[in-house]
Amino acid sequence: MELVSRNRCFGGEQAVYKHASEACGVDMTFAVFLPPQAKSRSVPALWYLSGLTCTHDNAMTKGGFQQFAAEYGVALIFPDTSPRGEAVPDNDSYDLGVGAGFYLNATQDPWRSHFQMYDYVVCELRSLVQDAFPISERHGITGHSMGGHGALTIAMRNPGLFASLSAFSPIVNPCQSDWGRKQFSAYLGDDESTWAQYDATVLMSETGWHGDILIDQGADDQFIDLLRPQAFAEATALRRQPCVLRTHVGYDHSYFFVSTFAKDHMCWHADRLNGN
Amino acid sequence: MELVSRNRCFGGEQAVYKHASEACGVDMTFAVFLPPQAKSRSVPALWYLSGLTCTHDNAMTKGGFQQFAAEYGVALIFPDTSPRGEAVPDNDSYDLGVGAGFYLNATQDPWRSHFQMYDYVVCELRSLVQDAFPISERHGITGHSMGGHGALTIAMRNPGLFASLSAFSPIVNPCQSDWGRKQFSAYLGDDESTWAQYDATVLMSETGWHGDILIDQGADDQFIDLLRPQAFAEATALRRQPCVLRTHVGYDHSYFFVSTFAKDHMCWHADRLNGN
Repeated sequence: MELVSRNRCFGGEQAVYKHASEACGVDMTFAVFLPPQAKSRSVPALWYLSGLTCTHDNAMTKGGFQQFAAEYGVALIFPDTSPRGEAVPDNDSYDLGVGAGFYLNATQDPWRSHFQMYDYVVCELRSLVQDAFPISERHGITGHSMGGHGALTIAMRNPGLFASLSAFSPIVNPCQSDWGRKQFSAYLGDDESTWAQYDATVLMSETGWHGDILIDQGADDQFIDLLRPQAFAEATALRRQPCVLRTHVGYDHSYFFVSTFAKDHMCWHADRLNGN
Repeated sequence: MELVSRNRCFGGEQAVYKHASEACGVDMTFAVFLPPQAKSRSVPALWYLSGLTCTHDNAMTKGGFQQFAAEYGVALIFPDTSPRGEAVPDNDSYDLGVGAGFYLNATQDPWRSHFQMYDYVVCELRSLVQDAFPISERHGITGHSMGGHGALTIAMRNPGLFASLSAFSPIVNPCQSDWGRKQFSAYLGDDESTWAQYDATVLMSETGWHGDILIDQGADDQFIDLLRPQAFAEATALRRQPCVLRTHVGYDHSYFFVSTFAKDHMCWHADRLNGN
């Protein structure tokens, strides 16, 4: 694991690392924020999965999470959104290939040799950060847009790994959206029965989540038709899923929206991670 | 208007009145709480509409709203849920007739001569309390179950009359529920096109609400299949309606649930009523 950068931040430390990934078959970059409390004890961790076109950098620099992570004593982990580099297949679209891993394990050529972001996040990076940093076994997960999709699907499929869950304007029903069908066709093939494991609305209908969920959505989100919040809202209500779904007038899909509600999400996770 | 009772309460005054109602053709009873601030100035008012089998009394005695109404300087108005008395037609069911007015104007015999609760609340009682008490023109509305249905439908149909809106475990889709179809058939007749004006999900789809909405729902509500929160959740998401929909694990349909979240609702309304 190679240190790329390290900066003091709100009394803690914001670092970026590079490491050879077995799951993705290339070097992967991620960021980690350790709050001041991590100097003297292990702390819980919040995973933040980013959206289309993003890297580990966007939320790290624009999300405004560190202030509250330092206050509440929670580490932050910012993975990349896909493998990158000359060896990695790509596509001219912004929403397929590099920057658009969709947190799944591709089964189709040419993607499957590197696009294994589900295993990368759930297994490889989890294990790595747990070993390398003073991070306890209590983890929460959140994300934005495609990263909200990642957070919801990964949490519902791995309830034992996460104690808290939230999302910002997540893609919640990719099987029924152009942000989903195109990518799942490419990464997973035409057999749609293999897609359901990566659809938050399907997972909510079938299994739900053991805790409560916070989701914030901008009412003026320019991509809202692709996110399909109505499908997830209906599924949570039908399941009687403990949750708080908030729709905020005037807010769009940007990091101006995410940063506005960063404190609420940090507080949500800290309450659940620091409990017990 | 005849004073039935008056009690000091949190520095203000909890009173019950009886008056001859023109809309309902019988004497009607209602309760009003005036906070201490009303001694020196007019205050905004929050309407609380009760559910099936209730009178003005249930929320007044079990809701726990007065504590926060006194703190925030908001009056409370608790109407009855139907006309009552020997002249009023009734039914053996708890959910039709007396105690089950559904906040609508009946068009069918034998109900139409007295069951005019929509006009009673929206026009007659509004006018009466505005004249009789130091209440400003800024009103909010909330309610529980059938009263949540009343609050949502009355607010959406009369946006100019209300500045804030919330509900506790509301009946939100009566056109598709046994809490609705039975009553609408009796009160409104078989032409279902006349029912839509009293269905919160239909109104949300067609017109929405000019402000934001807070709704709390117990995940263990024993009547949840009759409430159909999933229909309203989907409709709000599709409309991009500013709202906060909260589902609370372990809570049922009772006043133990309502009183737990009374403070949050009082605060929600006070913020909007005391602002501009």
